[in-house]
Amino acid sequence: MTKNSKPNILVTNDDGITAPGIKALIEAVSDFGNLVVVAPDSPQSGQGHALTLNTPLRLRKVKHFEGIEAYECSGTPVDCVKLAKDVVMGERGIDLCVSGINHGSNASINIIYSGTVSAAMEASLEGIDSIGFSLLNYSYDADFEPAKKYVRHLVDYVLKNGLNNTKLLNVNIPGLPAEEIKGVKVCRQAEAKWVEEFARAKDPHGREYYWLTGKFINSDNSEDADVVALENGYVSVVPSHHDLTAYDAIDGLRAVEL
Amino acid sequence: MTKNSKPNILVTNDDGITAPGIKALIEAVSDFGNLVVVAPDSPQSGQGHALTLNTPLRLRKVKHFEGIEAYECSGTPVDCVKLAKDVVMGERGIDLCVSGINHGSNASINIIYSGTVSAAMEASLEGIDSIGFSLLNYSYDADFEPAKKYVRHLVDYVLKNGLNNTKLLNVNIPGLPAEEIKGVKVCRQAEAKWVEEFARAKDPHGREYYWLTGKFINSDNSEDADVVALENGYVSVVPSHHDLTAYDAIDGLRAVEL
Repeated sequence: MTKNSKPNILVTNDDGITAPGIKALIEAVSDFGNLVVVAPDSPQSGQGHALTLNTPLRLRKVKHFEGIEAYECSGTPVDCVKLAKDVVMGERGIDLCVSGINHGSNASINIIYSGTVSAAMEASLEGIDSIGFSLLNYSYDADFEPAKKYVRHLVDYVLKNGLNNTKLLNVNIPGLPAEEIKGVKVCRQAEAKWVEEFARAKDPHGREYYWLTGKFINSDNSEDADVVALENGYVSVVPSHHDLTAYDAIDGLRAVEL
Repeated sequence: MTKNSKPNILVTNDDGITAPGIKALIEAVSDFGNLVVVAPDSPQSGQGHALTLNTPLRLRKVKHFEGIEAYECSGTPVDCVKLAKDVVMGERGIDLCVSGINHGSNASINIIYSGTVSAAMEASLEGIDSIGFSLLNYSYDADFEPAKKYVRHLVDYVLKNGLNNTKLLNVNIPGLPAEEIKGVKVCRQAEAKWVEEFARAKDPHGREYYWLTGKFINSDNSEDADVVALENGYVSVVPSHHDLTAYDAIDGLRAVEL
């Protein structure tokens, strides 16, 4: 953090800069520091850690949020963070990155498809403490008010204490009225998955197409799984990282001398 | 695996169905089973685990590979695997998924941006043994011959022995002549990162754009890091998974009662 000044907080999301969720996030954290918003100019849900290699990126200063420096970017959430760090913030530096509030769950396996959490992870790769926030309500008109309390609580904690070696928190908030949310639970990512059901139809030109749809199936009922905490009315906090190594498989594979 | 028959092997990639790397992969594994190819109809490098939610997907049977059932898909590598499983293969089932051979490294942090490995991971989520193969040569005209030997060796091992709980291998192959490749090493994902340098220029209409470029910086010199094994002339094999939980941070966060 820059000496004698408020922290620089980068705000991004994957639902796009006009989504109500990012507005709620900005409202929740605006008094914690100097906010700079760099967010996609269009919805980028399900973009995971995608980045834009083969086309140029556009970055445009906008006035969507009163008194707050904000830019919309033509790329993915990860592109936004890369541009924020290298082009927008440069020597100013970023002390904290918050991403969201996503319209819909990023608990369990959703984390790997999530543009919201991938944006936060991209910042964490740069050594920046980062939090992805998601509300378990997919609706455009979701009520983000109850979520704001937990956003503020966690941002306050992270700004005061830092995240040490873990630089990334994946936070999901139940889609419940404030009085029904029971508190915060530190969890692990549940072992759940999506079962696809492609809708198959013909376009107006008679050509067949497929459209992805699916059902989320949780088979992980242990108490420390994020999906279970959410079902029980808790905000789930999963410390997360970018190391995908399956360490427990290394010795076995070494033993067979591949 | 279906009784009394050869295994069903799904082949995909992220460089697109016309890339030389997928042709090399098909040549390498064609006698191990019944191959079905479902690959993107255009280059999808850097698409990570992106999937297509907001537009329909096209799937078209093609005759790119003699005697082999093949489809090109308008979506991402992950879309290809989802469509392969649910629409193309259905009850036939998939016994093994191989993805690649990628033109360029997917070692270390590249795994999270990689469409190649994300496709294999998507199959692994379905309980299918999966391997992502990458050659450390970005050239379109790279020589894939030396890589084929290791592809065959690893596919043979996995078909005979399975991958047990670990369902995913991230395999990178040095861009060296056959006689200079020293063998296979089981590794962990190195702690390396990209340092971005956006190219900034104006388009023919005078509007500014940014184009992502960068340098790969490895700061992890321990012997079991994949980048180090590759530098030393070994094929790196990193058992990988989709659980991003930072387990070693859980106790510390629980202790502070968030």
